[in-house]
Amino acid sequence: MNICLFEPEIAQNAGAIARLCACFGAGLHIIEPASFILDNRGFHRAGMDYIDKVDIQLHSSFAEFKQGYNGRVILFDTKAKTAYCDVSYMSDDCLLFGRESCGVPDEVYDACDERVVITMVAGVRSLNVAMSAAIALSEATRQIKHTA
Amino acid sequence: MNICLFEPEIAQNAGAIARLCACFGAGLHIIEPASFILDNRGFHRAGMDYIDKVDIQLHSSFAEFKQGYNGRVILFDTKAKTAYCDVSYMSDDCLLFGRESCGVPDEVYDACDERVVITMVAGVRSLNVAMSAAIALSEATRQIKHTA
Repeated sequence: MNICLFEPEIAQNAGAIARLCACFGAGLHIIEPASFILDNRGFHRAGMDYIDKVDIQLHSSFAEFKQGYNGRVILFDTKAKTAYCDVSYMSDDCLLFGRESCGVPDEVYDACDERVVITMVAGVRSLNVAMSAAIALSEATRQIKHTA
Repeated sequence: MNICLFEPEIAQNAGAIARLCACFGAGLHIIEPASFILDNRGFHRAGMDYIDKVDIQLHSSFAEFKQGYNGRVILFDTKAKTAYCDVSYMSDDCLLFGRESCGVPDEVYDACDERVVITMVAGVRSLNVAMSAAIALSEATRQIKHTA
């Protein structure tokens, strides 16, 4: 199981997600521009020593990442229609999360294999991206263990 | 569905959890000492305007909270043996999380109705409390919708 962050903007979120990946044994892909995040104090404060336990791969573009990735890429996006827990996850899936400010561009949205949403109560905007990644990765892991 | 934080120490985590509660329509109980958190800049930065949408109740002690709460109190703790997704959640459950530094004291551990753990890979210590709360609340919500 893998997580991919598309051009992440907030170092602390990326650090929290790196720690999450370490705890679940998931790999972490990051699409540039984002290198600045890996040197940021917020990244290391949120990720702590868990960062050393995660396989982090940087990619120059979404196209480069998608071409080299063998499994499905499943986008988590508030615009999607399918509930995230109605998808059957596989162990080589990659769960993709967009920028904190504005998600992913249309061409990335369209290029993903699945697009899902974390359902929330009406009238509320969105979850923090690190919280979304925790919900996504734990549900995918739960399903895979349950059906193994 | 409710979340309860036992003597939370880090305002930013409590703020992130308040935002989470707003997104899932859950109530938030906080056990004192913790009032200082509600005035903290980190609480408001992480919780943003979502804080206004959450019913936050402060309690003077765990005993006071437990006595007044009608549903089950389910503790999330790394020492527990039961996997969190092997429990059947009910809509009046309260999901309890301990202090960032040292969890809950033994008497609180023993007084809970259930004790569960978020299973992780071997050799990794723990998730951040806000990430744990996201995993817990989303699984409980998923189960309740699924069996409704």
